[in-house]
Amino acid sequence: MTIQRITIIGTGLIGASAGLALRAAQFPGEIVGWDRHPEQAQLALERGAVDTIAGDAITTAVTSDLVLLSGPVFAIQDWLEKLAPQLKPHQLVTDVGSVKVAVTERAQPLFGGPGQAGFLPGHPMAGKEVSGATHADAQLFAHAVWLFTEFAGHPLAPEWRSWVERFGCRTMEIQAARHDEICAWVSHLPQFLSTALSAMLEDRFGDAPDLRAIGGRALREMTRLGASPYSMWRDIAHANEAAIAEALMAMEQQLAHTRENLKTPELRDEFERANRFRANPPVDKSFT
Amino acid sequence: MTIQRITIIGTGLIGASAGLALRAAQFPGEIVGWDRHPEQAQLALERGAVDTIAGDAITTAVTSDLVLLSGPVFAIQDWLEKLAPQLKPHQLVTDVGSVKVAVTERAQPLFGGPGQAGFLPGHPMAGKEVSGATHADAQLFAHAVWLFTEFAGHPLAPEWRSWVERFGCRTMEIQAARHDEICAWVSHLPQFLSTALSAMLEDRFGDAPDLRAIGGRALREMTRLGASPYSMWRDIAHANEAAIAEALMAMEQQLAHTRENLKTPELRDEFERANRFRANPPVDKSFT
Repeated sequence: MTIQRITIIGTGLIGASAGLALRAAQFPGEIVGWDRHPEQAQLALERGAVDTIAGDAITTAVTSDLVLLSGPVFAIQDWLEKLAPQLKPHQLVTDVGSVKVAVTERAQPLFGGPGQAGFLPGHPMAGKEVSGATHADAQLFAHAVWLFTEFAGHPLAPEWRSWVERFGCRTMEIQAARHDEICAWVSHLPQFLSTALSAMLEDRFGDAPDLRAIGGRALREMTRLGASPYSMWRDIAHANEAAIAEALMAMEQQLAHTRENLKTPELRDEFERANRFRANPPVDKSFT
Repeated sequence: MTIQRITIIGTGLIGASAGLALRAAQFPGEIVGWDRHPEQAQLALERGAVDTIAGDAITTAVTSDLVLLSGPVFAIQDWLEKLAPQLKPHQLVTDVGSVKVAVTERAQPLFGGPGQAGFLPGHPMAGKEVSGATHADAQLFAHAVWLFTEFAGHPLAPEWRSWVERFGCRTMEIQAARHDEICAWVSHLPQFLSTALSAMLEDRFGDAPDLRAIGGRALREMTRLGASPYSMWRDIAHANEAAIAEALMAMEQQLAHTRENLKTPELRDEFERANRFRANPPVDKSFT
């Protein structure tokens, strides 16, 4: 084992969950945490997600084998810029960013070349609608898929993947462009749908107690992601705008089609296609 | 106690769950079941949701104190027509239909007048994306709201309400028109959104294994209702078309607004309104 010291930059929900998952998988090395909000680093420490808090992220990163960047996409890009000149070829940086083209393009000139540290773009398909180390959970990644995008190859990359698999994840290789396209439909679109539904209901019924009283499981589920923070999704909306806009436009058209066919047999076809989508056995066993 | 014999017409998911909930609440009387699919009545019997299966629904109904109509809206309307001439004023019919104007309008000339049986329009805000007595559950209604619409008043109505409360429900009074309006937004819209999303993904990615492999909790939740059967929703789409079309149109506009503002500060406002919708303490404690 050569990963003996890990620095987690960004000890919010995902970063602190990774620390807890490493501990649950009996990672024997040291985990150092840093967060731009000191109280998040403190919480991660108290939760046992990190062993120590770094006073300065770069100083700690240069003495670590692996640096995990966890946070909004643009923050990850900034850290790639800041870390690249300081790190050595034996060190590996990996990330958990929700958009991969923007991250890998930024990393391209900075990592993986002669004399440069390594980079392994990653993205766990797991999360919550609430943020912060308070909600971190060693089991957050269990049964999820942790995506990796081929970059330049690095000796530590297989070891980090094997840790991720010990979190209970299935790992999967995906090209950056395909990642961003698929995620626009299966992750970003569901988020923006839920936010739009929640915002619309707040506008129309914010002060109607009977609406809140009546809503059942369907409403709760379909608006759960409405609690997600703008701070995380702003960067995703920017960095994957074209694909998200395409998915939203397709959804608008689909809803118009539904609306125009509420009383026609076409509605039956739509339900049957929807039933088929849910009935097909998915690869991920947790998809039930 | 004067409700001693109950006939459940339609022993699918909701009807059989009501039978199981009555038993769990220690209803001491007799429960007779009938379903147009004999295997559903048989399943309800095997599950203990009913004591006996009626050979003929009307014959059994005329000797019951209360008749519970459970099924699609148009089937409920048909049963109102068939039962009204056979029942006496001491008997009460109640239903679980998802649309209330269509049901109460049909019942108006048939129930609650001199010499006519009573009618109590009802609607439990609970369900599943799967149908049938196999999925019936005594706890299905726990923490849900069971809506009632004022009709003509009947001596047995308070007793039925008190049984419903013993299922773990909160009961609430709502006018038929307000019911249909609110349900269009909090129940019907979430269903058609989930169906539309599922159908669209089936069309675009039906044969793409990576889409299914990658989807996480957000996708699972937002498409869960995609498994709902057309047979139930066809009647709702017909009977509440105007309100559902209005909600769908509003959603299309909201999504277009989101799409046009992926890179503007308006996106922050939308997330904040959505966050507010989720943060306001709802009346229903299960709304989390």
